[in-house]
Amino acid sequence: MRVLFVGDVYGKTGRQMIDEYLPRLKSAYKPNVTIINGENSAHGKGITETIYKQLMRAGADAITMGNHTWDNKEIFEFIDRADHMVRPANYPKGTPGQGLIFLNRNGVEIAIINLQGRVFLPAIDCPFAAADELIKKARAKTSLIFVDFHAETTSEKLAMGWYLDGRVSAVVGTHTHVPTADERILEQGTAYLTDVGMTGPYNGIIGVQRDAVIHRFKTSMPVRFESETGPGQLCAVVIDIDKATGKATAIKRHFINPDHPFYE
Amino acid sequence: MRVLFVGDVYGKTGRQMIDEYLPRLKSAYKPNVTIINGENSAHGKGITETIYKQLMRAGADAITMGNHTWDNKEIFEFIDRADHMVRPANYPKGTPGQGLIFLNRNGVEIAIINLQGRVFLPAIDCPFAAADELIKKARAKTSLIFVDFHAETTSEKLAMGWYLDGRVSAVVGTHTHVPTADERILEQGTAYLTDVGMTGPYNGIIGVQRDAVIHRFKTSMPVRFESETGPGQLCAVVIDIDKATGKATAIKRHFINPDHPFYE
Amino acid sequence: MRVLFVGDVYGKTGRQMIDEYLPRLKSAYKPNVTIINGENSAHGKGITETIYKQLMRAGADAITMGNHTWDNKEIFEFIDRADHMVRPANYPKGTPGQGLIFLNRNGVEIAIINLQGRVFLPAIDCPFAAADELIKKARAKTSLIFVDFHAETTSEKLAMGWYLDGRVSAVVGTHTHVPTADERILEQGTAYLTDVGMTGPYNGIIGVQRDAVIHRFKTSMPVRFESETGPGQLCAVVIDIDKATGKATAIKRHFINPDHPFYE
Amino acid sequence: MRVLFVGDVYGKTGRQMIDEYLPRLKSAYKPNVTIINGENSAHGKGITETIYKQLMRAGADAITMGNHTWDNKEIFEFIDRADHMVRPANYPKGTPGQGLIFLNRNGVEIAIINLQGRVFLPAIDCPFAAADELIKKARAKTSLIFVDFHAETTSEKLAMGWYLDGRVSAVVGTHTHVPTADERILEQGTAYLTDVGMTGPYNGIIGVQRDAVIHRFKTSMPVRFESETGPGQLCAVVIDIDKATGKATAIKRHFINPDHPFYE
Ligand SMILES: [Fe+2]
Ligand SMILES: [Fe+2]
Ligand SMILES: [Fe+2]
Ligand SMILES: [Fe+2]
Ligand SMILES: [Fe+2]
Ligand SMILES: [Fe+2]
Ligand SMILES: [Fe+2]
Ligand SMILES: [Fe+2]
Repeated sequence: MRVLFVGDVYGKTGRQMIDEYLPRLKSAYKPNVTIINGENSAHGKGITETIYKQLMRAGADAITMGNHTWDNKEIFEFIDRADHMVRPANYPKGTPGQGLIFLNRNGVEIAIINLQGRVFLPAIDCPFAAADELIKKARAKTSLIFVDFHAETTSEKLAMGWYLDGRVSAVVGTHTHVPTADERILEQGTAYLTDVGMTGPYNGIIGVQRDAVIHRFKTSMPVRFESETGPGQLCAVVIDIDKATGKATAIKRHFINPDHPFYE
Repeated sequence: MRVLFVGDVYGKTGRQMIDEYLPRLKSAYKPNVTIINGENSAHGKGITETIYKQLMRAGADAITMGNHTWDNKEIFEFIDRADHMVRPANYPKGTPGQGLIFLNRNGVEIAIINLQGRVFLPAIDCPFAAADELIKKARAKTSLIFVDFHAETTSEKLAMGWYLDGRVSAVVGTHTHVPTADERILEQGTAYLTDVGMTGPYNGIIGVQRDAVIHRFKTSMPVRFESETGPGQLCAVVIDIDKATGKATAIKRHFINPDHPFYE
Repeated sequence: MRVLFVGDVYGKTGRQMIDEYLPRLKSAYKPNVTIINGENSAHGKGITETIYKQLMRAGADAITMGNHTWDNKEIFEFIDRADHMVRPANYPKGTPGQGLIFLNRNGVEIAIINLQGRVFLPAIDCPFAAADELIKKARAKTSLIFVDFHAETTSEKLAMGWYLDGRVSAVVGTHTHVPTADERILEQGTAYLTDVGMTGPYNGIIGVQRDAVIHRFKTSMPVRFESETGPGQLCAVVIDIDKATGKATAIKRHFINPDHPFYE
Repeated sequence: MRVLFVGDVYGKTGRQMIDEYLPRLKSAYKPNVTIINGENSAHGKGITETIYKQLMRAGADAITMGNHTWDNKEIFEFIDRADHMVRPANYPKGTPGQGLIFLNRNGVEIAIINLQGRVFLPAIDCPFAAADELIKKARAKTSLIFVDFHAETTSEKLAMGWYLDGRVSAVVGTHTHVPTADERILEQGTAYLTDVGMTGPYNGIIGVQRDAVIHRFKTSMPVRFESETGPGQLCAVVIDIDKATGKATAIKRHFINPDHPFYE
């Protein structure tokens, strides 16, 4: 089972990168399952139903989210009918949406889990305890489990990777919008990458118009953030999972940008 | 002018990696200047004079630091005679040590600057304002300027990169201990990498014994952190700078670890 | 039912204030139940079994705690036999100790709950959800419920006060070490005070030696904190609760210090 | 010299409290100088020129601000002509507005300084270093110096109080919106109060509609904050300063609210 996961799609530029490169990536790598993190797909802040459908039509089988899930108020209207959307599972009980979904590919079931870290992020339920609970639920059906852990710090992400090592097929991080270079298969067979990186403007600051961000850092004044314009980038990872064991057998990172164009 | 920069050396394992691989890296890449971030070289917390001298003897021309500069109290005794140590320049006036040094290689001067971010880190002076001031000072002598920006978030680091683009030769990040994969030369000629990554235990959590970190995340209780044992990793970057203009012409990342051994 | 609650006892000076003034306060106000927050009673960091027993002997019926509960490692040895100690209830399941206890005074049962906030404090379970659960448990036995909410910000504390208004007898805050002047009975009958204040050195900075704290703020360097010496202060609150309804009928604040000596 | 200082005026309710009670307070206490913190006077977020003028007309001689200074964009248009507005002095050089003003009362000069803390607040310049600099400037003209230190934590505020003890006439805190009960004259003659408290809705959460705040704490979701309605409160402090020495001779706190109505 091959999974293609694309990191945080940011605004219009991000969606254009999906339209342009997802078909080519899929044709080159032939994933069985394609997952996109869409927490920044609507102007950097959340997602709309139109964009959710557009990303699904563009080739996603599931959309994971993060701390920006709730930024666009439309989410509250459609999240409960968005069957293939996975929001961080460790929001408190009663939160709309779902944190775990299953996909079936030719009789093989794969579980997709979204979790959110708590260091320098909103206070929600413990992602480690939530992971234990969800994995138990998932393993009742399958040993193929993919986790998008949306978190800020490298320590919390590495802790989750090692904590779940051998119990899930993959733990990939999102949220920092910069791809890390530490992809590996951990000791007990879990594929791990601290952050997949962002899919959006190549010349901004984590997607945002760069002069505005610099101005805020220099002045400490509130600034209105718009998306950066110009060329885009796409960050993704391809992970191969053994159907029999649920263990990862390979992990490969992709960072498509003007300096490193995609070649089939 | 070729600069080899090695990311945060962490404890004994990190120092062993330096002893084993720095000579081989230097023999393979023949850098004119070698810089090591040493903020975690003494059991993960600061540096001692003995270790400072050991790193210099092992092949460093300068040692940069970070938020852990002051963790080992010995620093206050020797920092003012450690001519090749550069601590974050934006600590308040009166702080011991220096934030900018110059090295001369065959008549070519290069400035080395260390700065520290403020997001999720101690409140110190503005690193952007400090950069402006130090660059002015440095450019009076040379246009070859190397900046180690020790910071937590990708946004503050990218902001610094873009802010200094065209004014310095390189901005490389340290502190998160995970190498990022976004090395590039920015539009105006500054080499940039969000984080070089850590040089120390490969199987820990940013250097620390992993069970202890996981326990703390699960219980929120104070935990005594020790270094992780087992095999090591080394993270480095090699940057080529045009002597005439101070612009970067190439940037190459290195991540030596058991899964990716070093080959000359 | 009259409850006397004494805010965070800090180190030796705090314990001396207890020894000197608790008998006088009790003789003057004749509380049915006396509760002391003891999270800083051992040199400012946690508590020992000896000090726990000393505080109980000095007149406490229960000891509440806070984020410093675990600072003195001895806690792990004795917390499970410390029947009258209440630590923040919203630490994760499996945490040693208890977050809710009951005391009986002439046939009248009162529940004592300790909760900890999450804003600018360690990530633990939701104190609001924990409150719901514990109140349900408590109300099965009694409508007299006293809550020590240990938290940093005024907003989280006020939110808890209003959230529990009418469901508990009192919500008093601890942790900031400065008494607030906003004691009142909320609309549905819950006595409320944002922070009771600290019992310890009068001339320090929240208990700590003041020059050390100032030095840290000016230099951003790590500093060893010792308790301030000199005269002490005691902060307390006396709350009257209607036995029949569990509603508060009166709340009175006490701040004993050299500028405002205690008078019977 | 008597100074009346009114804490953070919050929205319409806060302005109404000023209109209703400021004349009565002035007639009862006859202050020589009246200062109002206005950082929340426009719907809780910043200030407008109309409101600034309204507060001045209502009896203020100076308006201090805080972290919300820049929330209402109008500020950038009028701050440089608002002669009696004092914004936190330790925003970076180049920030519009002024952090120190002088008022003259019958030949006696008083300096008014506004500073902002950095713990759990935006990263700006060091308030302690800024204080040193401004006090030097102020003392060239007068020894009567009033400081509004806008900060979150009790430790940073107490540190500032003790740091400036004997060098300024008064250090009063603002920002937490809850009045503290620790008013005193420090050892070297500086009047001190950790927080004056807020002037606005009595039944909200630091001014905000309380159900919205509770909802956010329970769900960790973004919430639109409106001002709470219903009765108001006014928090103020009256400080007497010896004209000859600049030392404080008395400090008295006022908390006007439905439970404690104002009486002349
Ligand atoms: Fe994102
Ligand atoms: Fe995010
Ligand atoms: Fe480091
Ligand atoms: Fe660091
Ligand atoms: Fe405390
Ligand atoms: Fe505490
Ligand atoms: Fe305010
Ligand atoms: Fe404020």
